[in-house]
Amino acid sequence: METVDAISRRASVREYSGEYIDKDILKRLVDCGRMAPTARAVEPWEIVVITERGILKRLGEIATSGSFIKNAAACIVIYCQDTKYYLEDGCAATENILIAASDAGLGSCWVAGDKKPYAPDVSRLLGVPTNYKLVSMISLGWPKEETRQVKKRTVDDVIHWEHFRQKGIK
Amino acid sequence: METVDAISRRASVREYSGEYIDKDILKRLVDCGRMAPTARAVEPWEIVVITERGILKRLGEIATSGSFIKNAAACIVIYCQDTKYYLEDGCAATENILIAASDAGLGSCWVAGDKKPYAPDVSRLLGVPTNYKLVSMISLGWPKEETRQVKKRTVDDVIHWEHFRQKGIK
Repeated sequence: METVDAISRRASVREYSGEYIDKDILKRLVDCGRMAPTARAVEPWEIVVITERGILKRLGEIATSGSFIKNAAACIVIYCQDTKYYLEDGCAATENILIAASDAGLGSCWVAGDKKPYAPDVSRLLGVPTNYKLVSMISLGWPKEETRQVKKRTVDDVIHWEHFRQKGIK
Repeated sequence: METVDAISRRASVREYSGEYIDKDILKRLVDCGRMAPTARAVEPWEIVVITERGILKRLGEIATSGSFIKNAAACIVIYCQDTKYYLEDGCAATENILIAASDAGLGSCWVAGDKKPYAPDVSRLLGVPTNYKLVSMISLGWPKEETRQVKKRTVDDVIHWEHFRQKGIK
Protein backbone atom coordinates (compact mmCIF):
# COMPACT_ATOMS: atom_id res chain seq x y z
CA MET A 1 0.00 0.00 0.00
CA GLU A 2 1.17 3.56 -0.65
CA THR A 3 2.56 5.19 2.49
CA VAL A 4 0.13 8.09 2.65
CA ASP A 5 -2.80 5.67 2.25
CA ALA A 6 -1.53 3.54 5.14
CA ILE A 7 -1.22 6.67 7.29
CA SER A 8 -4.64 8.06 6.33
CA ARG A 9 -6.53 4.75 6.60
CA ARG A 10 -5.24 4.04 10.12
CA ALA A 11 -7.94 4.37 12.76
CA SER A 12 -8.48 2.83 16.17
CA VAL A 13 -10.13 -0.59 15.73
CA ARG A 14 -11.34 -2.44 18.82
CA GLU A 15 -13.52 -5.17 17.26
CA TYR A 16 -11.92 -8.07 15.44
CA SER A 17 -13.06 -10.96 13.26
CA GLY A 18 -11.49 -13.66 15.41
CA GLU A 19 -9.11 -14.87 12.67
CA TYR A 20 -5.50 -15.38 13.66
CA ILE A 21 -2.58 -13.31 12.33
CA ASP A 22 0.30 -15.10 10.66
CA LYS A 23 3.47 -14.92 12.76
CA ASP A 24 5.44 -13.65 9.75
CA ILE A 25 3.15 -10.61 9.61
CA LEU A 26 3.60 -9.97 13.34
CA LYS A 27 7.35 -10.23 12.95
CA ARG A 28 7.28 -7.75 10.05
CA LEU A 29 5.40 -5.28 12.26
CA VAL A 30 8.06 -5.61 14.98
CA ASP A 31 10.72 -5.17 12.30
CA CYS A 32 9.10 -1.84 11.36
CA GLY A 33 9.00 -0.87 15.04
CA ARG A 34 12.69 -1.49 15.64
CA MET A 35 13.56 0.73 12.64
CA ALA A 36 12.09 3.80 14.38
CA PRO A 37 14.31 6.77 15.16
CA THR A 38 15.96 6.68 18.58
CA ALA A 39 17.61 9.53 20.47
CA ARG A 40 21.37 9.15 20.89
CA ALA A 41 21.21 5.79 19.03
CA VAL A 42 20.22 3.99 22.24
CA GLU A 43 17.50 1.67 20.79
CA PRO A 44 16.08 1.09 24.29
CA TRP A 45 13.16 -1.09 23.16
CA GLU A 46 12.17 -4.69 23.78
CA ILE A 47 9.00 -5.81 22.02
CA VAL A 48 6.78 -8.61 23.35
CA VAL A 49 4.33 -10.25 20.92
CA ILE A 50 1.42 -12.09 22.49
CA THR A 51 -0.83 -14.50 20.60
CA GLU A 52 -1.76 -17.03 23.33
CA ARG A 53 -5.43 -16.71 24.17
CA GLY A 54 -4.92 -17.09 27.94
CA ILE A 55 -2.35 -14.29 28.12
CA LEU A 56 -4.43 -11.97 25.90
CA LYS A 57 -7.44 -12.56 28.16
CA ARG A 58 -5.46 -11.83 31.32
CA LEU A 59 -3.86 -8.73 29.72
CA GLY A 60 -7.30 -7.38 28.80
CA GLU A 61 -8.41 -7.85 32.42
CA ILE A 62 -5.34 -6.14 33.90
CA ALA A 63 -5.04 -3.26 31.39
CA THR A 64 -8.44 -1.73 31.99
CA SER A 65 -8.04 0.85 29.17
CA GLY A 66 -7.60 -2.06 26.76
CA SER A 67 -10.26 -4.57 27.81
CA PHE A 68 -10.81 -5.37 24.11
CA ILE A 69 -7.33 -6.98 24.02
CA LYS A 70 -9.04 -10.12 25.31
CA ASN A 71 -10.70 -10.50 21.88
CA ALA A 72 -7.65 -9.46 19.83
CA ALA A 73 -5.73 -11.88 17.63
CA ALA A 74 -2.47 -10.51 19.02
CA CYS A 75 -1.04 -7.77 21.16
CA ILE A 76 2.37 -6.15 20.66
CA VAL A 77 3.73 -4.68 23.88
CA ILE A 78 6.49 -2.04 23.75
CA TYR A 79 8.93 -1.79 26.63
CA CYS A 80 11.90 0.55 26.92
CA GLN A 81 14.82 0.88 29.25
CA ASP A 82 14.38 3.93 31.47
CA THR A 83 16.43 6.37 29.38
CA LYS A 84 15.92 10.14 29.10
CA TYR A 85 14.01 9.76 25.83
CA TYR A 86 12.40 6.34 26.42
CA LEU A 87 8.90 7.70 25.80
CA GLU A 88 9.79 9.43 22.52
CA ASP A 89 11.62 6.33 21.28
CA GLY A 90 8.91 3.93 22.38
CA CYS A 91 6.16 6.06 20.82
CA ALA A 92 8.03 6.30 17.51
CA ALA A 93 8.30 2.49 17.47
CA THR A 94 4.61 2.20 18.37
CA GLU A 95 3.56 4.50 15.54
CA ASN A 96 5.71 2.62 13.01
CA ILE A 97 3.91 -0.58 14.01
CA LEU A 98 0.47 1.05 13.74
CA ILE A 99 1.23 2.30 10.23
CA ALA A 100 2.65 -1.07 9.17
CA ALA A 101 -0.49 -2.74 10.58
CA SER A 102 -2.67 -0.38 8.56
CA ASP A 103 -0.57 -1.24 5.49
CA ALA A 104 -1.27 -4.94 6.12
CA GLY A 105 -5.02 -4.32 6.40
CA LEU A 106 -5.02 -5.04 10.14
CA GLY A 107 -7.09 -3.18 12.70
CA SER A 108 -5.16 -1.84 15.65
CA CYS A 109 -5.57 0.24 18.78
CA TRP A 110 -2.87 1.98 20.85
CA VAL A 111 -3.46 1.27 24.54
CA ALA A 112 -1.56 3.52 26.95
CA GLY A 113 1.07 1.95 29.18
CA ASP A 114 3.23 4.75 30.51
CA LYS A 115 1.80 6.51 33.56
CA LYS A 116 -0.81 3.78 33.99
CA PRO A 117 -1.32 2.21 37.44
CA TYR A 118 -1.66 -1.22 35.81
CA ALA A 119 1.88 -1.11 34.32
CA PRO A 120 3.55 -3.13 37.15
CA ASP A 121 0.89 -5.85 36.87
CA VAL A 122 1.39 -6.07 33.09
CA SER A 123 5.15 -6.42 33.64
CA ARG A 124 4.61 -9.20 36.18
CA LEU A 125 2.29 -11.05 33.79
CA LEU A 126 4.88 -10.93 30.99
CA GLY A 127 7.93 -11.51 33.20
CA VAL A 128 9.49 -8.15 32.37
CA PRO A 129 12.26 -6.90 34.74
CA THR A 130 11.35 -3.81 36.77
CA ASN A 131 14.00 -1.65 35.06
CA TYR A 132 11.92 -1.60 31.84
CA LYS A 133 9.09 0.90 31.36
CA LEU A 134 5.82 -0.12 29.73
CA VAL A 135 5.27 2.36 26.86
CA SER A 136 2.27 0.96 24.98
CA MET A 137 0.22 -2.08 24.07
CA ILE A 138 -0.99 -2.47 20.50
CA SER A 139 -4.14 -4.52 20.18
CA LEU A 140 -4.34 -6.21 16.75
CA GLY A 141 -6.80 -8.18 14.66
CA TRP A 142 -8.55 -8.31 11.31
CA PRO A 143 -11.33 -5.71 11.44
CA LYS A 144 -14.82 -7.10 12.04
CA GLU A 145 -16.37 -4.45 9.82
CA GLU A 146 -15.17 -1.70 7.52
CA THR A 147 -12.89 0.70 9.41
CA ARG A 148 -14.49 4.07 10.05
CA GLN A 149 -12.41 7.22 10.13
CA VAL A 150 -13.06 9.58 13.01
CA LYS A 151 -13.54 13.18 11.89
CA LYS A 152 -10.45 15.11 12.93
CA ARG A 153 -9.28 18.71 12.92
CA THR A 154 -8.38 19.81 9.38
CA VAL A 155 -4.84 20.47 8.20
CA ASP A 156 -5.71 24.18 7.81
CA ASP A 157 -6.78 24.32 11.45
CA VAL A 158 -3.57 22.65 12.68
CA ILE A 159 -0.96 24.32 10.45
CA HIS A 160 0.87 27.58 11.25
CA TRP A 161 3.23 29.16 8.69
CA GLU A 162 6.45 30.70 10.02
CA HIS A 163 4.93 31.77 13.36
CA PHE A 164 2.19 30.62 15.69
CA ARG A 165 -1.00 32.44 14.74
CA GLN A 166 -3.68 33.39 17.21
CA LYS A 167 -6.65 31.07 16.90
CA GLY A 168 -9.37 32.40 14.66
CA ILE A 169 -6.85 34.15 12.38
CA LYS A 170 -5.72 31.98 9.48
CA MET B 1 6.39 4.56 -2.24
CA GLU B 2 5.36 1.36 -0.48
CA THR B 3 4.81 1.89 3.26
CA VAL B 4 7.42 -0.57 4.47
CA ASP B 5 10.01 0.98 2.12
CA ALA B 6 9.27 4.46 3.49
CA ILE B 7 9.68 3.13 7.04
CA SER B 8 12.88 1.22 6.32
CA ARG B 9 14.55 3.93 4.21
CA ARG B 10 14.03 6.61 6.90
CA ALA B 11 17.27 7.63 8.57
CA SER B 12 18.45 10.80 10.28
CA VAL B 13 19.72 13.21 7.62
CA ARG B 14 21.47 16.41 8.75
CA GLU B 15 23.03 17.61 5.48
CA TYR B 16 20.86 19.07 2.75
CA SER B 17 21.27 20.12 -0.88
CA GLY B 18 20.03 23.68 -0.35
CA GLU B 19 17.04 23.28 -2.68
CA TYR B 20 13.70 24.53 -1.38
CA ILE B 21 10.71 22.27 -0.61
CA ASP B 22 7.41 23.01 -2.30
CA LYS B 23 4.81 24.27 0.18
CA ASP B 24 2.30 21.66 -1.04
CA ILE B 25 4.72 18.93 0.06
CA LEU B 26 5.16 20.56 3.48
CA LYS B 27 1.41 20.83 3.87
CA ARG B 28 1.02 17.13 2.96
CA LEU B 29 3.51 16.23 5.70
CA VAL B 30 1.51 18.22 8.26
CA ASP B 31 -1.64 16.53 6.98
CA CYS B 32 -0.05 13.15 7.75
CA GLY B 33 0.94 14.43 11.20
CA ARG B 34 -2.55 15.56 12.16
CA MET B 35 -3.90 12.09 11.24
CA ALA B 36 -1.87 10.44 14.02
CA PRO B 37 -3.65 8.61 16.83
CA THR B 38 -4.48 10.73 19.85
CA ALA B 39 -5.46 9.58 23.33
CA ARG B 40 -9.05 10.40 24.30
CA ALA B 41 -9.54 12.09 20.88
CA VAL B 42 -8.00 15.33 22.20
CA GLU B 43 -5.84 16.21 19.11
CA PRO B 44 -3.72 18.57 21.25
CA TRP B 45 -1.29 19.52 18.45
CA GLU B 46 -0.45 22.76 16.67
CA ILE B 47 2.16 22.45 13.94
CA VAL B 48 4.41 25.33 12.91
CA VAL B 49 6.13 25.13 9.50
CA ILE B 50 9.19 27.31 9.05
CA THR B 51 10.78 28.07 5.68
CA GLU B 52 12.10 31.62 6.20
CA ARG B 53 15.89 31.57 6.24
CA GLY B 54 16.22 34.04 9.12
CA ILE B 55 13.95 32.05 11.43
CA LEU B 56 15.66 28.74 10.52
CA LYS B 57 19.04 30.27 11.29
CA ARG B 58 17.88 31.61 14.67
CA LEU B 59 16.19 28.28 15.51
CA GLY B 60 19.44 26.41 14.78
CA GLU B 61 21.27 28.74 17.14
CA ILE B 62 18.75 28.41 19.97
CA ALA B 63 18.09 24.66 19.68
CA THR B 64 21.63 23.49 20.26
CA SER B 65 20.79 19.81 19.58
CA GLY B 66 19.64 20.85 16.11
CA SER B 67 22.26 23.33 14.93
CA PHE B 68 21.92 21.85 11.40
CA ILE B 69 18.40 23.37 11.21
CA LYS B 70 20.14 26.56 10.05
CA ASN B 71 20.95 24.80 6.74
CA ALA B 72 17.60 23.00 6.40
CA ALA B 73 15.07 23.89 3.71
CA ALA B 74 12.32 23.78 6.32
CA CYS B 75 11.58 22.85 9.89
CA ILE B 76 8.28 21.49 11.17
CA VAL B 77 7.78 22.19 14.87
CA ILE B 78 5.26 20.16 16.88
CA TYR B 79 3.54 21.73 19.87
CA CYS B 80 0.90 20.20 22.09
CA GLN B 81 -1.40 21.46 24.78
CA ASP B 82 -0.25 20.17 28.17
CA THR B 83 -2.54 17.13 28.34
CA LYS B 84 -1.84 13.84 30.15
CA TYR B 85 -0.74 12.17 26.91
CA TYR B 86 0.70 15.18 25.08
CA LEU B 87 4.07 13.48 24.57
CA GLU B 88 2.59 10.27 23.15
CA ASP B 89 0.31 12.24 20.83
CA GLY B 90 3.03 14.64 19.71
CA CYS B 91 5.50 11.82 19.07
CA ALA B 92 2.96 9.88 17.01
CA ALA B 93 2.41 13.00 14.88
CA THR B 94 6.18 13.49 14.59
CA GLU B 95 6.73 9.93 13.42
CA ASN B 96 3.94 10.18 10.84
CA ILE B 97 5.68 13.25 9.40
CA LEU B 98 9.08 11.52 9.34
CA ILE B 99 7.64 8.55 7.44
CA ALA B 100 5.78 10.83 5.02
CA ALA B 101 9.04 12.77 4.48
CA SER B 102 10.88 9.53 3.72
CA ASP B 103 8.09 8.65 1.28
CA ALA B 104 8.64 12.00 -0.49
CA GLY B 105 12.39 11.37 -0.74
CA LEU B 106 13.17 14.08 1.81
CA GLY B 107 15.89 13.85 4.43
CA SER B 108 14.78 14.56 7.97
CA CYS B 109 16.04 14.60 11.53
CA TRP B 110 13.99 14.54 14.76
CA VAL B 111 15.36 17.17 17.15
CA ALA B 112 14.20 16.83 20.76
CA GLY B 113 12.05 19.56 22.24
CA ASP B 114 10.42 18.14 25.36
CA LYS B 115 12.61 18.33 28.47
CA LYS B 116 15.06 20.64 26.67
CA PRO B 117 16.22 23.85 28.41
CA TYR B 118 15.95 25.72 25.09
CA ALA B 119 12.18 25.04 24.77
CA PRO B 120 11.04 28.41 26.24
CA ASP B 121 13.37 30.29 23.87
CA VAL B 122 12.02 28.38 20.86
CA SER B 123 8.47 29.23 21.94
CA ARG B 124 9.36 32.92 22.26
CA LEU B 125 10.96 32.91 18.79
CA LEU B 126 7.82 31.42 17.23
CA GLY B 127 5.31 33.36 19.33
CA VAL B 128 3.83 30.25 20.94
CA PRO B 129 1.76 30.76 24.12
CA THR B 130 3.32 29.30 27.28
CA ASN B 131 0.51 26.75 27.75
CA TYR B 132 1.82 24.76 24.77
CA LYS B 133 4.64 22.22 25.16
CA LEU B 134 7.38 21.91 22.56
CA VAL B 135 7.46 18.22 21.57
CA SER B 136 9.85 18.08 18.61
CA MET B 137 11.43 19.93 15.72
CA ILE B 138 11.77 18.13 12.39
CA SER B 139 14.62 19.40 10.25
CA LEU B 140 13.92 18.83 6.54
CA GLY B 141 15.72 19.08 3.22
CA TRP B 142 16.63 17.18 0.08
CA PRO B 143 19.55 14.92 1.05
CA LYS B 144 22.98 16.14 -0.05
CA GLU B 145 24.17 12.59 -0.66
CA GLU B 146 22.66 9.12 -0.65
CA THR B 147 21.04 8.40 2.71
CA ARG B 148 22.98 5.87 4.75
CA GLN B 149 21.20 3.48 7.09
CA VAL B 150 22.66 3.12 10.56
CA LYS B 151 23.11 -0.49 11.61
CA LYS B 152 20.51 -1.27 14.24
CA ARG B 153 19.62 -4.14 16.53
CA THR B 154 18.02 -6.98 14.55
CA VAL B 155 14.37 -7.95 14.80
CA ASP B 156 15.39 -11.27 16.39
CA ASP B 157 17.26 -9.39 19.11
CA VAL B 158 14.30 -7.10 19.85
CA ILE B 159 11.39 -9.56 19.64
CA HIS B 160 10.02 -11.64 22.52
CA TRP B 161 7.27 -14.22 21.91
CA GLU B 162 4.53 -14.50 24.55
CA HIS B 163 6.84 -13.61 27.47
CA PHE B 164 9.94 -11.54 28.05
CA ARG B 165 12.97 -13.79 27.63
CA GLN B 166 16.16 -13.35 29.54
CA LYS B 167 18.83 -11.84 27.32
CA GLY B 168 21.08 -14.40 25.71
CA ILE B 169 18.25 -16.94 25.46
CA LYS B 170 16.35 -16.72 22.18
